[in-house]
Amino acid sequence: MTSIFDQDLPQTPANYAAMSPLSFIERSAATYPQQLAVVHGTGPQALRRNWSELYRRCRQLASALSKSGIGKGDTVAVMLPNTPPMVEAHFGVPMAGAVLNTINTRLDPKMVAFMLDHGEAKVVIVDPEFAPTMSKALALRTSSAPIKVIDATDSLYTGSNQPIGDSEYENFIAGGDPDFAWSLPGNEWDAIALNYTSGTTGNPKGVVYHHRGAATAAISNILEWDMPKHAVYLWTLPMFHCNGWCFPWAVAARAGVNVCLRRIEAQAIFDAIREHGVDHYCGAPIVHSMLVNAPDSIKQGVPQGVKAMVAGAAPPASMIEGMERMGFNLLHVYGLTETYGPATVCAQHQNWGDLDIGERARLNARQGVTYHLERGIAVMDPDTMQPVPADGETMGEIMFRGNITMKGYLKNPKATQEALAGGWFHSGDLAVMDPDGYVKIKDRSKDIIISGGENISSIEVEDILYRHPDVLAAAVVARSDKRWGETPCAFIELKDGAQATPESIIEHCKKHMASFKVPRQVVFCELPKTSTGKIQKFELRKQAEALEAAAVQ
Amino acid sequence: MTSIFDQDLPQTPANYAAMSPLSFIERSAATYPQQLAVVHGTGPQALRRNWSELYRRCRQLASALSKSGIGKGDTVAVMLPNTPPMVEAHFGVPMAGAVLNTINTRLDPKMVAFMLDHGEAKVVIVDPEFAPTMSKALALRTSSAPIKVIDATDSLYTGSNQPIGDSEYENFIAGGDPDFAWSLPGNEWDAIALNYTSGTTGNPKGVVYHHRGAATAAISNILEWDMPKHAVYLWTLPMFHCNGWCFPWAVAARAGVNVCLRRIEAQAIFDAIREHGVDHYCGAPIVHSMLVNAPDSIKQGVPQGVKAMVAGAAPPASMIEGMERMGFNLLHVYGLTETYGPATVCAQHQNWGDLDIGERARLNARQGVTYHLERGIAVMDPDTMQPVPADGETMGEIMFRGNITMKGYLKNPKATQEALAGGWFHSGDLAVMDPDGYVKIKDRSKDIIISGGENISSIEVEDILYRHPDVLAAAVVARSDKRWGETPCAFIELKDGAQATPESIIEHCKKHMASFKVPRQVVFCELPKTSTGKIQKFELRKQAEALEAAAVQ
Repeated sequence: MTSIFDQDLPQTPANYAAMSPLSFIERSAATYPQQLAVVHGTGPQALRRNWSELYRRCRQLASALSKSGIGKGDTVAVMLPNTPPMVEAHFGVPMAGAVLNTINTRLDPKMVAFMLDHGEAKVVIVDPEFAPTMSKALALRTSSAPIKVIDATDSLYTGSNQPIGDSEYENFIAGGDPDFAWSLPGNEWDAIALNYTSGTTGNPKGVVYHHRGAATAAISNILEWDMPKHAVYLWTLPMFHCNGWCFPWAVAARAGVNVCLRRIEAQAIFDAIREHGVDHYCGAPIVHSMLVNAPDSIKQGVPQGVKAMVAGAAPPASMIEGMERMGFNLLHVYGLTETYGPATVCAQHQNWGDLDIGERARLNARQGVTYHLERGIAVMDPDTMQPVPADGETMGEIMFRGNITMKGYLKNPKATQEALAGGWFHSGDLAVMDPDGYVKIKDRSKDIIISGGENISSIEVEDILYRHPDVLAAAVVARSDKRWGETPCAFIELKDGAQATPESIIEHCKKHMASFKVPRQVVFCELPKTSTGKIQKFELRKQAEALEAAAVQ
Repeated sequence: MTSIFDQDLPQTPANYAAMSPLSFIERSAATYPQQLAVVHGTGPQALRRNWSELYRRCRQLASALSKSGIGKGDTVAVMLPNTPPMVEAHFGVPMAGAVLNTINTRLDPKMVAFMLDHGEAKVVIVDPEFAPTMSKALALRTSSAPIKVIDATDSLYTGSNQPIGDSEYENFIAGGDPDFAWSLPGNEWDAIALNYTSGTTGNPKGVVYHHRGAATAAISNILEWDMPKHAVYLWTLPMFHCNGWCFPWAVAARAGVNVCLRRIEAQAIFDAIREHGVDHYCGAPIVHSMLVNAPDSIKQGVPQGVKAMVAGAAPPASMIEGMERMGFNLLHVYGLTETYGPATVCAQHQNWGDLDIGERARLNARQGVTYHLERGIAVMDPDTMQPVPADGETMGEIMFRGNITMKGYLKNPKATQEALAGGWFHSGDLAVMDPDGYVKIKDRSKDIIISGGENISSIEVEDILYRHPDVLAAAVVARSDKRWGETPCAFIELKDGAQATPESIIEHCKKHMASFKVPRQVVFCELPKTSTGKIQKFELRKQAEALEAAAVQ
């Protein structure tokens, strides 16, 4: 029998609305129209817009896109640094019903072309710095579908400026209506963003985010950080990474300030912190260590209590100590593109502050516990789907479930089903569960190299190496690197009579991949293999670390 | 054609979970097991439980209810002050799949009986203070369905203790499993709570809350207040009011402290603030004015920066000034039972602090803007459903829409449809929209009297008056009252030859209604009527205020 609580109590527009981060900007513009929303640059020339202005520009963008025929389920790709148009794209694109595909600005034309093709982008917005790459990518597309190209000029960009598009961004949005009557998605499960991840196998996968998840992730960020209204957030983390971990939407919910930043440089960061009163920023370990290791002269006058989030690798003790010396608070989070960025946090306890630095670093280096509004995290045996004992020793695979887990992989039902099999998202990362319920990664999913916060698929690099005429077999593994966290190290068996040198191999790579993916070291040797002929990367990782140790001595 | 973003990307247990405040306590117990969750009393005898203990007790309660046959859609009623069992009921009851019906402890047996009947309660948990009322209510039920009665004893209760139930609360939950494997609701639209409201017409209506709305309201509270992790929340607001404005769930999401409080007295409140480091509390204006007007001797040593929320009536300048003198920050919110408590907030702007007290009071007296995660608020002409101009003068009806609006009225489809007609919840309150987008109530929905934060239906009181043999006609209106905000004032036309005195009318009322509803003043007169014979309450309100003015002189 139907319960009395399920009779005649339907969802109506009065008591049900789609969850969406688009509501956040609407409310902030209505409630705090005069509060600063975006600042770009420093000094009297800095560009400043308040929430009313930003909201109107986002509606203009949505309107202009609509007039261009963009609507529900269409893809709008952007290749932009952390500039004002990037902030606007996070609202204007979904307000038009479209899906935002932020493209990693470090990718090579071929990879960009793949994404434009696979994501079926109908519009692309590009910064002049990346126009040459985009221009080549457009030429490499296999699709013959029309694509509208918009150049987003930026007064802070000082390089060469060669427009490649049909129109310029300011002109384009000028044709839009600043009072455009956008509407929430018909379903909160509708897609809001598309983010390509380099997996372990071949082509990148297109991770689809929906409105419900984006809103939930953004609010979780606020809750975890106790992020107050009008927080001042510095854009050190690229917005093309998991939509900046959903912080464009979190900042909107807080009516905070987006402090834009074209380049991640210590001087520019400290200047922005001082001048704009930055109190929050995120980044890979390399960003924080760059600040810690910056000369004292440029750190003068930086305020205390700045909150920083780090992900991509565990913060070492020296980084935690350095951050403490600057008066910054460092919070360790963990997640994947598939989890909208952070979906666990190494939640700090009040008594940790009393521990010595070694113990503090050990505790803070863990990936931690479930993010606020994610349903759950577990370390499980992927075969039995049973949690491992919380003994800090038994390894299992990190699994996630809940509303901060992707909708799935675009046009890839097989990968989607595999990734979400058994009611959990399989991260591919191996970890243990500590007795206090905190997760600690023990081994990265073995093929991924994380360099400067970027994922590099070893298989992708190997594919290129195998194309070299002299290469018989190749394996690429991560090698520890003080600056980048990890860099790719290539082990290669040459064919008989081969003439290749390590330098010529590197030259070959540079022609075929983004420079950050190019192996920093190439070693010629016989590759260790299992009895069935599988290359033992485990052995190679040990060899790579030994190279490192030798280099240090 | 279906968009590529809607193909092969289904909801699965891996990427979709029901939103529910039950997740909040699970996470806090897992992440902060040792953090204080509940404190009851002061000094070394105070009862203290951490989040691990509280969670285990809630699961015990859920398990014990399940063993008693309670499951999805069953109603569990409670008549409790703000004691630990009341906190536990907010989690344990929905963990069993059941719906929590918190009963106003000031109601008379007949009204309680109506609620037990209408809500079809299968279990009732009662504090010894209210056992006599509940005992009478149980005898007055018209339903013959079995009902299990549980006495919740409380060591801080000093009155007479006459058990009326089948079992005692501690014994009852001792039969439950502290590791009970509860599950989230199958649908986030499932009911979590039932709260009766006195409407303007006859019987109270049963407002149904769902899990999605309860979670959304709780998070909105946190966002609006910038409520930090481990906040210490004092229970001055009855949890039977809109589930304490959803703060039991908000405190769980923050792994905060529930400071219980049996009685709302200035000394007890200041003691709790000092001893437990309370930093947040809510209440009707009477609570705050009680604190402001308390003798300085009992205010000594109270910390600065305590945050207070007020609703039920606009805070007058004297209250705002008094709170400021104590170093407290007062935030004005507004809502109805149908909106889970607050669904607007008079969001404060940074520059308001510079204004003089008169202007500050005027700004803060407004009902304000949409609550964080509510979809919207509007002031509209209910006939045309068009917003009134934002001119601060044109009156309209306050309307709400979004996820912080009730599921509907239990077993009352007609009232539900009327209340939610046109895609908005009709509040019945009349207001103007200021040019800055802030709503200001101009006239309460005319029949409701708000006394000490309690809604009193004038029609309900009139019904009782009409039962007196000497009464020809009766009308009850609100009269301003320094202490209670408003009190009921009755205007009565007596029949010819009637012998009644105001005192005998009041005696009659006391027999038939809760004491707080009894008119404080009874005036015999000829009632002013329209040409169609309708009593002009507008005129009577003016007369009531004149009485007040006369009394003041």
